[in-house]
Amino acid sequence: MTEPIYLDHNGTTPVDPEVLDAMLPFLHSEFGNPSSTTPWGRRARSAIEQARAEVADLISAHPDEIIFMSGGTEASNHAIAGFAGRAPRDRRRIVTSTVEHPATGNPCWRLEQAGFAVVRVLVAHNGIVDVKAAEAAIDASTALVTIIHAQNETGVLQPVSELARAAAAVGAPIHADASQSLGKVPIDVAAWGIDAMTIAGHKLYAPKGIGALFLKRGHDLPSPLAGAGQERGRRPGTENVASIVGLGRACVIAGQRLAEDAQRIAQLRDRLWQELSSKVPDLERVGAGAPTLPNTLNVLFPRTAGNAVLAAAPEIAASTGSACHAGEDKPSSIITAHGYAAGQAVGAVRLTLGRATTSEDVSRAAAALASAWEQLSVSAAV
Amino acid sequence: MTEPIYLDHNGTTPVDPEVLDAMLPFLHSEFGNPSSTTPWGRRARSAIEQARAEVADLISAHPDEIIFMSGGTEASNHAIAGFAGRAPRDRRRIVTSTVEHPATGNPCWRLEQAGFAVVRVLVAHNGIVDVKAAEAAIDASTALVTIIHAQNETGVLQPVSELARAAAAVGAPIHADASQSLGKVPIDVAAWGIDAMTIAGHKLYAPKGIGALFLKRGHDLPSPLAGAGQERGRRPGTENVASIVGLGRACVIAGQRLAEDAQRIAQLRDRLWQELSSKVPDLERVGAGAPTLPNTLNVLFPRTAGNAVLAAAPEIAASTGSACHAGEDKPSSIITAHGYAAGQAVGAVRLTLGRATTSEDVSRAAAALASAWEQLSVSAAV
Repeated sequence: MTEPIYLDHNGTTPVDPEVLDAMLPFLHSEFGNPSSTTPWGRRARSAIEQARAEVADLISAHPDEIIFMSGGTEASNHAIAGFAGRAPRDRRRIVTSTVEHPATGNPCWRLEQAGFAVVRVLVAHNGIVDVKAAEAAIDASTALVTIIHAQNETGVLQPVSELARAAAAVGAPIHADASQSLGKVPIDVAAWGIDAMTIAGHKLYAPKGIGALFLKRGHDLPSPLAGAGQERGRRPGTENVASIVGLGRACVIAGQRLAEDAQRIAQLRDRLWQELSSKVPDLERVGAGAPTLPNTLNVLFPRTAGNAVLAAAPEIAASTGSACHAGEDKPSSIITAHGYAAGQAVGAVRLTLGRATTSEDVSRAAAALASAWEQLSVSAAV
Repeated sequence: MTEPIYLDHNGTTPVDPEVLDAMLPFLHSEFGNPSSTTPWGRRARSAIEQARAEVADLISAHPDEIIFMSGGTEASNHAIAGFAGRAPRDRRRIVTSTVEHPATGNPCWRLEQAGFAVVRVLVAHNGIVDVKAAEAAIDASTALVTIIHAQNETGVLQPVSELARAAAAVGAPIHADASQSLGKVPIDVAAWGIDAMTIAGHKLYAPKGIGALFLKRGHDLPSPLAGAGQERGRRPGTENVASIVGLGRACVIAGQRLAEDAQRIAQLRDRLWQELSSKVPDLERVGAGAPTLPNTLNVLFPRTAGNAVLAAAPEIAASTGSACHAGEDKPSSIITAHGYAAGQAVGAVRLTLGRATTSEDVSRAAAALASAWEQLSVSAAV
């Protein structure tokens, strides 16, 4: 059997061959410890600083605003626990949404246990946060606003700059989780006016185990980890040099390809929706009408479970929701947060395209998924 | 100019070519997210579980006692903050030593700020902790004993199993930092009776940015990071699959080579000492008489600074102390903790051998360092 068609790019992306090429010297002869003054150490240090500039450039940040760390989860924890820990005593409120990734949701939950009030703003049926409700929640007692930029299951893009204005008006910092959006849509932290942003390598054709936090100049947050003085005292632990170099290269490539990729992939994604919805009556598109990532299509198959559809379509590699809790039969809390009933939400299948996705992939995927669904519908009717 | 002789293996090791070969498929086609149920995801999951068994095997642990994380710093933080956080209210004492790595020292300092009493047991002139003093300090109010197994600057090995007995006698857990020792000397967590142990990939011919915590069955510690349910809920964040596979392979190789490497490298190290001390009168060997790592030689050059010796011997790539604070002119607090005066401690040079070190390297290094020292002594005398 040939490999299935990979439509799980929001789960993780392959490493771009150019990214791997950039990394390989640092897994071969250039193995120096960047904190060391040996020639190897100095070359490793210099490679890290180049990568820092490359990451900064993609998001219109200054290089010194980029802190490398082990991934998106660490970056979000660093920002959320850090801003909460540094907040004045009279700011004990966190404003967030009902559609966050667990890497934001769970640090917020920890803060709630520690006595913070966490306000989770609802989203409309199309997945966009209720900006009026958010603006009402963001007040002078707010320690932090933290919001997912592109929802990982639905691709819906949140109005980060509007929320940033509301946060700035009351002197509260705002953190955005761009794990899923960076490289897929343009990001400009300066124009948005945000204080911190999470970056995850493995959603961006860089390897797993590397990420970064954008932290605006002037902020100084304690790391969740204590140790030696790497990253100018902001994140201890010997730097993951090869993967940092890979993340830098991935950002350069994303910057070059973004506009063209986004257009091509959005067309394929829209055709996937058209073909699939023409074959599956009552198929529901989650986030319809909202601005979304160009590559993400989340659909609710009627009267069946998304898991069953995927199991009956082994030609397709996709997921029913976040890879972080795939394989479960419970409906996704992200989908029910849109106002769908559990019985409808359980039909969710997330189809996420990538750079290698072809037009033929899309036609085959639509046919395979529709056929799987029909088969299940027939057996249910019998 | 040819590359200098690399004698900074305690700073970091090159990635073993076999380790890189094992990793490469997971940076090419096997890019799946282990939390995903796609075929790629299942293969990534299976590779992680094989690596977990390989790491466990090297230290006589069970695979379910190995938690992968981003490096030694994270592992030590996880253990130290975790045990302290889980300690009963009447246990507010941490017992540690004066010769810890910052990845232990700084988490302990944070706990001290939070109200814990941190007892830092002194070491003798040979670098070994005063076991009697440690036994006296480890009492019923002890939340945790945390001790470096092999000191990274001196290579001196601490009597972990003796301290483990003292901890067990009062019902306190013990954590050992084996970042520097794993793969160089045999480690048996079961025989030692320890509760947790730090593992760092990049000291063991695996890449930077990967490590693991051994955590004995029955312990359940909160992660410094909150997020999704990876590592059975024990460490969130998408797994660094390629590097985990690399760490597993590095442990297999270390197990196969350990005895032979240790003997060969210790002979070279001892010859380096003999040749160097025959050429440099009054050269002091730090940790003389103590059991040490086979690859580590820390010497104090008389009447000069280690930095000056290394600067005058560019044929040698070594460090004056921990790579984590290389380039500083202050004497190492690790060396002064042995009772050396600052003026003597500043002469420290750490020479650390590795698998690729040859007999010729040793002769050339001894000659180059002695000649550099002589040159400095002559110019000082003029």
